[in-house]
Amino acid sequence: MENLKIREAEKKDVGRILFLIKELATFEKEEDAVKITEEELLEDGFGKSPTYKSIVAEYQGEVIGFALYFIRYSTWQGKTIYLEDFLIEDKYRSKGVGKLLFEEMIAISKRLKVRQMSWQVLDWNEGAIRFYEKYNAEFGEEWLNVRLLFPK
Amino acid sequence: MENLKIREAEKKDVGRILFLIKELATFEKEEDAVKITEEELLEDGFGKSPTYKSIVAEYQGEVIGFALYFIRYSTWQGKTIYLEDFLIEDKYRSKGVGKLLFEEMIAISKRLKVRQMSWQVLDWNEGAIRFYEKYNAEFGEEWLNVRLLFPK
Repeated sequence: MENLKIREAEKKDVGRILFLIKELATFEKEEDAVKITEEELLEDGFGKSPTYKSIVAEYQGEVIGFALYFIRYSTWQGKTIYLEDFLIEDKYRSKGVGKLLFEEMIAISKRLKVRQMSWQVLDWNEGAIRFYEKYNAEFGEEWLNVRLLFPK
Repeated sequence: MENLKIREAEKKDVGRILFLIKELATFEKEEDAVKITEEELLEDGFGKSPTYKSIVAEYQGEVIGFALYFIRYSTWQGKTIYLEDFLIEDKYRSKGVGKLLFEEMIAISKRLKVRQMSWQVLDWNEGAIRFYEKYNAEFGEEWLNVRLLFPK
């Protein structure tokens, strides 16, 4: 893919990022779970005290994928990177875009000198699992996610 | 338990917190996974740009439990609270200390107006699972933790 560019996300990308977040949630059978608005994503990423960062893959002027991350504190490892979302638009998959984004995340982790980058994957998402296995990622199977919701 | 106090963690508590972190890791059969030092915990919680917060349970002048948390960004929910560690010293369990700490975490979540507090639990830790079930916590079973380590 020519003219493919990996760069930091900018304010103008937030609309496309939200579109892709919703596409991923649909793939994960959780489309109703996306409560966030474009205004929140803007404020939380580019406002006074940003709580996440993102890199995007741009192809022919359009954002076709992104990786969104933040510093996550671990009482075992100290500061780590948590990869909250990592997504390539459906029609651009299997063309090496994910590889470029993921390897940029590894480069960022090394620049920030964290001991760990972690994320989660659905246990039935075999394509993603195979992708991560190529990087010798470690899979932990014993932990359950738990949450309490506080409806607004 | 008389003289039991729930309060914000202070610098002087970090040594006890690290002791309890190591105790929990041993219970979780992961004692070698604790790489963090007391200096890092001090800097990361009480330095120039803190990356976590903590509340502690103090009994007769000693910290016997704590809950350590941070703001975690969710592309579905916006800002949420992530409960990274929550622990009562072995000999003080089943006396209601955990209930006080956990309910303070719920109160903090509501004060911060987040949509969600989340955490993880080992799938064989039945005592903890029963505790969380009392609060109608939701358990997700399909997600695997994945990580890449960057040894220092």
